[in-house]
Amino acid sequence: MTDAAPPFTATALTLFPDAFPGPLGVSLLETARKNGLWALETVDIRSFSRHKHASVDDTPAGGGPGMVLRPDVVADAIDSVDRRSRPLINLTPRGRPLTQARVREWATGPGVIVFCGRFEGLDQRVVEARGMEEVSVGDAVLAGGEAPAMVLIEACVRLIPGVLGKLESTLDESFEGDLLEYPQYTRPRVWEGRDIPEVLLSGDHGRIDRWRREQAEDITRQRRPDLWARYQRRQGEEP
Amino acid sequence: MTDAAPPFTATALTLFPDAFPGPLGVSLLETARKNGLWALETVDIRSFSRHKHASVDDTPAGGGPGMVLRPDVVADAIDSVDRRSRPLINLTPRGRPLTQARVREWATGPGVIVFCGRFEGLDQRVVEARGMEEVSVGDAVLAGGEAPAMVLIEACVRLIPGVLGKLESTLDESFEGDLLEYPQYTRPRVWEGRDIPEVLLSGDHGRIDRWRREQAEDITRQRRPDLWARYQRRQGEEP
Repeated sequence: MTDAAPPFTATALTLFPDAFPGPLGVSLLETARKNGLWALETVDIRSFSRHKHASVDDTPAGGGPGMVLRPDVVADAIDSVDRRSRPLINLTPRGRPLTQARVREWATGPGVIVFCGRFEGLDQRVVEARGMEEVSVGDAVLAGGEAPAMVLIEACVRLIPGVLGKLESTLDESFEGDLLEYPQYTRPRVWEGRDIPEVLLSGDHGRIDRWRREQAEDITRQRRPDLWARYQRRQGEEP
Repeated sequence: MTDAAPPFTATALTLFPDAFPGPLGVSLLETARKNGLWALETVDIRSFSRHKHASVDDTPAGGGPGMVLRPDVVADAIDSVDRRSRPLINLTPRGRPLTQARVREWATGPGVIVFCGRFEGLDQRVVEARGMEEVSVGDAVLAGGEAPAMVLIEACVRLIPGVLGKLESTLDESFEGDLLEYPQYTRPRVWEGRDIPEVLLSGDHGRIDRWRREQAEDITRQRRPDLWARYQRRQGEEP
């Protein structure tokens, strides 16, 4: 056996380490962490302040509301981390939207470093000087980057081999195609007078597959015109 | 003075109450909660199991991988909550994408009830019977709905009057327009040999505003063709 590589490591740079682990500390992710399949580190940005009162921010150049994180403080926090070949991700509404394709790339690497901004963001010079990749999670405005960082880390960790059970692993195909998921049903067969759709009880797997695809197509068309357009392109012109 | 209405209340139905409060328990949100501006409740779905071993799920009707949350258990958990006129939101990749517009509506109401799914989702009958609104946060696949629930709740709470300071409140306009944010800079004026853009130090607020708008347009065009198209539509045909 050769030297074991360190496991996938998620490092969160944050002003609020107490926000972690949150959802990263329960269920399958917690078990996997205890089993050494991944590691979570937090770095307190405030400890890199070189200023009185541990200030980390200052007013925006050119005026405007809010406060901006100083580049020197942010750089010191980043430079304290053993980066290896991990991506350095800044969670911000300015970023490119998180995609499952990008998550897959990150999940097969040595880990991720996520920067959790607060205030009006951070100085653009440190974004450029340290090669930060700007990523957004959902189109809502938040108080900080911690919750989206957890979304990103959880998405990566569940793809690490061994984190999910065999059954759960096979779910990916259906979720990660171009269509949203078809509706699911389980026992009891009748609940509050509502039946499970008959086709699902038919045992006819061809019919079940067709019904599920139709349902998935319907919901995708209604809710996600963007995915629907991509799906139609990939299907090509059908006769 | 009339009876005080209860504050904005976020209720999370979850199999993992220990995931909370996470990012909802730090910084401005925690201070606001302590000051009675909002309240956070968790409801443990598992406590509504009527089955041996506290099972809450069963195999999907029609076959397929994974497990589906039973409608009776989910309904009992939902029905245990004083719903008032709060929306009941199911966080799922099948949902309509979260938008700031929807967040604004929720934030002005009495609160939100968020259902954090696990496994392969929940029985569609309970989604319909209880009028659940399906919402997705980002296009990544997660192990559970807890992290996106925190994104949603945080987005709502920061809009409650008094949660943000006056300075921060005024940030909304820039964030919530159709354009992504322009880059920000702060002290020091020179950092690692990199200057703050000269225009921001000019004191010419007309020039600064124009520069910021150009920057915001550039980044929006590059990163978010969807927002860029909407922005152009709203601008109309300019001469």
